Amino acid sequence: MIDLRSDTVTKPDDAMREAARDAEVGDDVYGEDPTVNQLEAEAADLVGMEDALYVPTGTMGNQVAVRTHTDRGQEVLVERESHVFKWELGGLAQLSSLQVRTLDGGERGIPTPEQVREGYVEEDAHRPGTGLLTLENSHNSKGGVAVAPEKIDAAAEAARELGVPVHLDGARVFNAAVAQDVSADRMTESVDSVMFCLSKGLGAPVGSMLAGSEEFVARARRNRKLFGGGMRQAGMIAGPGRLALENVERLADDHENARVLAERLADVDGLDVQDPETNIVLVNTEGADLLADEFLDACEDVGVRGTQFDTHVARFCTHWDVDRDDVETAAERVADALDE
Amino acid sequence: MIDLRSDTVTKPDDAMREAARDAEVGDDVYGEDPTVNQLEAEAADLVGMEDALYVPTGTMGNQVAVRTHTDRGQEVLVERESHVFKWELGGLAQLSSLQVRTLDGGERGIPTPEQVREGYVEEDAHRPGTGLLTLENSHNSKGGVAVAPEKIDAAAEAARELGVPVHLDGARVFNAAVAQDVSADRMTESVDSVMFCLSKGLGAPVGSMLAGSEEFVARARRNRKLFGGGMRQAGMIAGPGRLALENVERLADDHENARVLAERLADVDGLDVQDPETNIVLVNTEGADLLADEFLDACEDVGVRGTQFDTHVARFCTHWDVDRDDVETAAERVADALDE
Amino acid sequence: MIDLRSDTVTKPDDAMREAARDAEVGDDVYGEDPTVNQLEAEAADLVGMEDALYVPTGTMGNQVAVRTHTDRGQEVLVERESHVFKWELGGLAQLSSLQVRTLDGGERGIPTPEQVREGYVEEDAHRPGTGLLTLENSHNSKGGVAVAPEKIDAAAEAARELGVPVHLDGARVFNAAVAQDVSADRMTESVDSVMFCLSKGLGAPVGSMLAGSEEFVARARRNRKLFGGGMRQAGMIAGPGRLALENVERLADDHENARVLAERLADVDGLDVQDPETNIVLVNTEGADLLADEFLDACEDVGVRGTQFDTHVARFCTHWDVDRDDVETAAERVADALDE
Amino acid sequence: MIDLRSDTVTKPDDAMREAARDAEVGDDVYGEDPTVNQLEAEAADLVGMEDALYVPTGTMGNQVAVRTHTDRGQEVLVERESHVFKWELGGLAQLSSLQVRTLDGGERGIPTPEQVREGYVEEDAHRPGTGLLTLENSHNSKGGVAVAPEKIDAAAEAARELGVPVHLDGARVFNAAVAQDVSADRMTESVDSVMFCLSKGLGAPVGSMLAGSEEFVARARRNRKLFGGGMRQAGMIAGPGRLALENVERLADDHENARVLAERLADVDGLDVQDPETNIVLVNTEGADLLADEFLDACEDVGVRGTQFDTHVARFCTHWDVDRDDVETAAERVADALDE
Repeated sequence: MIDLRSDTVTKPDDAMREAARDAEVGDDVYGEDPTVNQLEAEAADLVGMEDALYVPTGTMGNQVAVRTHTDRGQEVLVERESHVFKWELGGLAQLSSLQVRTLDGGERGIPTPEQVREGYVEEDAHRPGTGLLTLENSHNSKGGVAVAPEKIDAAAEAARELGVPVHLDGARVFNAAVAQDVSADRMTESVDSVMFCLSKGLGAPVGSMLAGSEEFVARARRNRKLFGGGMRQAGMIAGPGRLALENVERLADDHENARVLAERLADVDGLDVQDPETNIVLVNTEGADLLADEFLDACEDVGVRGTQFDTHVARFCTHWDVDRDDVETAAERVADALDE
Repeated sequence: MIDLRSDTVTKPDDAMREAARDAEVGDDVYGEDPTVNQLEAEAADLVGMEDALYVPTGTMGNQVAVRTHTDRGQEVLVERESHVFKWELGGLAQLSSLQVRTLDGGERGIPTPEQVREGYVEEDAHRPGTGLLTLENSHNSKGGVAVAPEKIDAAAEAARELGVPVHLDGARVFNAAVAQDVSADRMTESVDSVMFCLSKGLGAPVGSMLAGSEEFVARARRNRKLFGGGMRQAGMIAGPGRLALENVERLADDHENARVLAERLADVDGLDVQDPETNIVLVNTEGADLLADEFLDACEDVGVRGTQFDTHVARFCTHWDVDRDDVETAAERVADALDE
Repeated sequence: MIDLRSDTVTKPDDAMREAARDAEVGDDVYGEDPTVNQLEAEAADLVGMEDALYVPTGTMGNQVAVRTHTDRGQEVLVERESHVFKWELGGLAQLSSLQVRTLDGGERGIPTPEQVREGYVEEDAHRPGTGLLTLENSHNSKGGVAVAPEKIDAAAEAARELGVPVHLDGARVFNAAVAQDVSADRMTESVDSVMFCLSKGLGAPVGSMLAGSEEFVARARRNRKLFGGGMRQAGMIAGPGRLALENVERLADDHENARVLAERLADVDGLDVQDPETNIVLVNTEGADLLADEFLDACEDVGVRGTQFDTHVARFCTHWDVDRDDVETAAERVADALDE
Repeated sequence: MIDLRSDTVTKPDDAMREAARDAEVGDDVYGEDPTVNQLEAEAADLVGMEDALYVPTGTMGNQVAVRTHTDRGQEVLVERESHVFKWELGGLAQLSSLQVRTLDGGERGIPTPEQVREGYVEEDAHRPGTGLLTLENSHNSKGGVAVAPEKIDAAAEAARELGVPVHLDGARVFNAAVAQDVSADRMTESVDSVMFCLSKGLGAPVGSMLAGSEEFVARARRNRKLFGGGMRQAGMIAGPGRLALENVERLADDHENARVLAERLADVDGLDVQDPETNIVLVNTEGADLLADEFLDACEDVGVRGTQFDTHVARFCTHWDVDRDDVETAAERVADALDE
C-alpha cells in the first residue's frame, strides 16, 4: 500500500527513535524538560521569534494562538478555506466564543490588503471589533499553494495598520519556504505568531510549535494548560522533534515527487490535476465521471491511498515515507485502475 | 428635523398610548398576562405558526431562535450581510458558542439552494455539523429588498432536505409581504421559525415576536429567561403591540414615500440611489466626492437625518412618522445642501 | 384569590398607567428617550451612583453587570443561595463562560470578610483569578433578610483590598433599606454596581436598573445590546418606572403585613415560620407532615397562593396589591385549611 | 536535590525508553497506531470499561469527559476541593459553558448520597438541570486520601437514581486501589467514566487515559480533537504508557515511603503532619510559625522540594524516583533546617 493520505502518516526513523530513547527529560509543566526547552529555543530561532511553545497538535497551537491574541467578544478574520475555520470543529466559537468573518483568499488562499481592510470591523455599539487576522501558508485546502512572503507581508501590514495582530497557521510553512527558496524566518517576518507542525513533512511523531514574542508565549502557556496541553516528560517526543527541524531541506524531495505524481496523473484520461507547488496534489475526478470517493475506492483497491477533499476532488500528499519509485508506481496503478 | 435614520424611531400614536394605559396585565413570567397572551396568539396566527413569544427586541428574538434550534457545537449558515451575523455583536459565538458559515446572498441577500447545499457541512471528526440556516426578509443591508417567497421556499427546502431547520429574521417581513402583495403567512410558509418586529414600521414602542411550533416556543421561552427577557406586566407594551399588528397595510405608504424620496434624490448630482423595494433608500455618495459621514453631516445641517451604512453608503428609512410632504421636503433640503 | 407568590405580580395603578400613556418617548437605542434618560438619572441618584441603565429584567441587569466587570476566563465569587447563581439558568457560565466559586453566607446570606479572602483566588498557571464578588440584599432565598450596610461594607472592602470589584444584586435593596431605616445610597455605598428592580415591591410593570460609574454603565450598555435588551420607545414603561421610585417608603407597609402574616401563621399547628425582616415569609411545613407543594395545593384550594422554595419550605411575599385585611384573611384561610 | 513536588516528576526508566524507541506506530488520528490501540484496550480492561482513549494530559481527560457527558446549559456537581474545579483554569465554564455546583466532601473529599441528592437540580424554567457528578479518588487536595469503593458506589448510585451520569477523576485511582487492597476495576465499578494518569505514580513520561462505554469514547474522541488532543504517532509515548500499567503494585512502595516520611516529619517540632493514606503527605507549618512558602524555601535550601497547597500547608509527594533512603534523608534535612 502506498499511503498518500497525508504527510502526517510518516513514521519516525531510527535516529528519531534513538532521540526519543535518549532524551534528557524533566517535568515540562514546571518548565524543566531540557529537551523541550532546547526544542522551543531552536524552533523560535528558526522562525525568527523570541520564544516558542511545544504543543501536542497543530490544532491546539492554532486555538491557543487565537485565544491568546484576542479579548472576549471579538471577531477573527479567517480565510474561508483555512484549516482553523474549516477543520477544527468550530473551536474559535466553541472554546473561545469568537465570531469568525471569512475572507475569500481566492486561488491562493491569501486575502489581499484590500480584503483585510474591508473585513476589518471597528468595535462599536452593534459590532464586535476585529481582534485577529489568521493566514495559512502553505494553504492546504487550496492544494498546498506556497504563498509568497510578499503577500503575507501585505496582508499582515494591512492588519497591523488597523491595530490587528496576525497569526500564521504555518502547519506546512517550511514547505512554503523551500518551494520558494526563501528562509523560514522570511515567511514569518511580518506576523506576530506562527504555528508549525513537526509531525507533518518534517517527520516527527508528535507535536507542533507555537512561536511569538516572549510575552505572547508566556500567556499562551497558560492557555495551553487550559486546553489540556501541559504535558510532563515531553522530551521523549520533543527529542525526535528537534531532529525534525533538520529535515527542512528534505522537503524539496517531497515537492519533486508531488510534481512527478501530478504529471503522471495528468496523463490519465478524465483526471484534472492541479500543478503542485509543494507536496500536495489535488485531483479533480469529474471528467472521469467519478465522485471523489468512488475514485479513492478504486485507488485503494490497487494499493494507493488518498483523501477526499470535495465531492469531485481527491488529495494525494507526498512525504518522507514515499520516494520517487513509490509515486511512479502509484501513478501507474491509478492509471491502470481507471483504464479498466 | 426630518428623522429618516430608522423606522425604529416612530412614536406611538394616541390609540397605542391608550392601549398601554388600559391593558389588562398579569405576570408574564407566570404566563398570566392576558394582553401578552393575546398578542402571542394573534402574532402566531398572522405568520401561520402554532405559537409565538413576545421578546423585548429583535436581537433577542433572533438570538433565542438560534440557540433554541441548535445543539452545542454546531455551525449556523448565515448570509454575509445579514443582521444576525453583522449587527448583533457576535452573539451567536458569544452567547451560544456557535460558529457561523457565511453565504453570499448576492444583491438580494438570499442564498440559492445550491449555496445552501454547498455550505452545508455534515458533522464528522473534524467538522461541526450545520445546525441551522437563517434567512432575512426584507434584507436590511441590501437596501430593504423584498425577497420573493419562492426564493425563501427554495433555500428553506434545500436546508430541510439536509435535515437543517430554518429561521427567518423577518424584522421587516411585513414590508416584504406588502411590497409583493402577498400575505405574511405566505412569506413564512417554508420556515420553522420567524422573528418580526413590532417596533419598526408597525409603530409599536417596544418589542418583537418569535413564532414557531408549540414545542419550539416552549423551549424558546426558557432561553428568553436565560437572556434576561422574561418581563413581568408586559401587557403595558404588548397592548400597543397588538395595535401594531393592524398597521401592516399601512406599510405601503412607507414604500411609496421611499420611492418618491429615491426619485428625488436620484436627481441630485453625484448621488447614486438604489431603487427601493420597501421603506429603505440606499444612497451612494461617491459620485459627490463625499464620504457617507460627510454627506450625513451636511444633511443634518439642513434638518435631515440618515445613518451610515458603509464608507460611501448612507441609508434613509421611511416610516409612520414621516409623510409624503416630509420626504419631499427632505429631498429638497438634501439637494440644496449638495448644491452649495 | 390572594396572590402572595411574589411581589412581581403587582399591577400598575392608575397613575402608572397614565404615566405610560403620557410618556415623552424617543428611540433609547440612540439614547433619545427622555423618560428613560430621566429614569436613569433619578435611579443613579437614588443609589448614589454616577449613572444607571434601564434593563427589561433583573436577570439581565445582573448578567450584564457580571459580564461588564470581568475579563474572559475569570472566576466570580457568589453566595451559594444567591439569585445570580441559583435562579438565572447558569447564565454566568452559559453567557459569559465564567466559573463560579460559592461562599456560604450563612443564615443571612452574606459572606464575611474572611470568607471573601479565603474564596479569593490569585490568577496563576492553574487557576482562574477572581474577577468579581456579588452580594445580594435583601437576600431572597434566605427569607428576605435585610443585610446590614456594615456587613455589605465589610465584605466589599475585603474584595476591594484584593482588587476585586463588587456587584450588589439589590433586586429588593429598598426593602433592605427601609427595614433598617437607612437610605438606599447607604446600602450601596461600598459596592461598584447595583441592580435593583422597579417591578417588584415598587410596583412598576416592567424593568430594572443597573447603576454604577459612568464608564461602567457605558460598557454595560453595549452588553445590554448583546443580550438583546436595547429597547426602543422604552419611555412607555420607564414612565411608570419613574413613579415606582416614589414607592420606596411604602415598602414599610409590606413589611408590616409580612410581620402580621408571619405571626398568624406561626400560630397554626405544624407550621414553623421564620420571622420576616422585609416582605418575605418563609414557612416550613415539615411539622405539619406536609411537603411544601402539598401545603401550597391546600392553600390554593382556599384562595391563597405562595411558591415552593424547598422540599418543605414555602414562600409568601407581601406587596402593593395586598393589604392588612388580605394577609389576615390569608392567614385565616390557611389555618382553616390545615385544621381540617 | 530530593524532589517531592509531585509524582509527575518521575523520569522514564530504561525499559520505558526502549519501549518508546521500539514502538510500532501509525497515525492515531486515523486510529492506526497499534501501540495506542493496545494501550487503550489494556487500559479499558484494567478499569473494567468497554473502551478507552489516550489523551496527552489528565486535565484534557477530565475536560473531555465533562463535555462528552453533558448537554449545553447544564450544571455539574463537583467537590469543592476537586482538581477539575480548582486546578483546571475554570475549564468547565470556559470551554464548555457549564455551571458548577460545589459539594463539600468533607475530610475525605467524597460527597454523601444525601449531598448528591440535595445538590441535584431538576431542570426548570429558572434552573439549569444537573448533567453530571464528578468524583475524585484518591483525592489530591485532601491529602491523597483513598476513598473507599463503597463511598464511591453510594454517591454514584444516588446520582444514577436521578438520571445523572458519574465521572471519576482517578488521576491517582491506582493509589487509592492499592492502598485499600482492592482491584482498580472495583474502584470504578459504579461510575460511567474514569480518567487516570499514566504520568504520575505509574511513571510514564506523558499521557492519561479516559475510559467508558464504547459509545462514550467514540464521542469523547471527537471532543479530544476539538481540544487539540488528536496526536499522530503517539505510540512513541503510548509504548512507555503500556509499561506504566505494570507499575500498579509498585505504588505500595510510594505509600510506605510516604508513611515513613510522615512519621519522621511528625517528630519535627512545629510541624503538624496528616497521616498519609497513599503517596501524598500534607504538612501544616503553622505551629512552626512559618508560612508554607517560607517553610518550602527552607526545605529547598537543604535540598528538599515540595509544593505549596495553602497558606500554611505544604505537600510532599513520593514517587518512583525516590526510595526509602531518600525520604529518610529528606526528613532529616527538613528536621535540621527547622532546628536551626
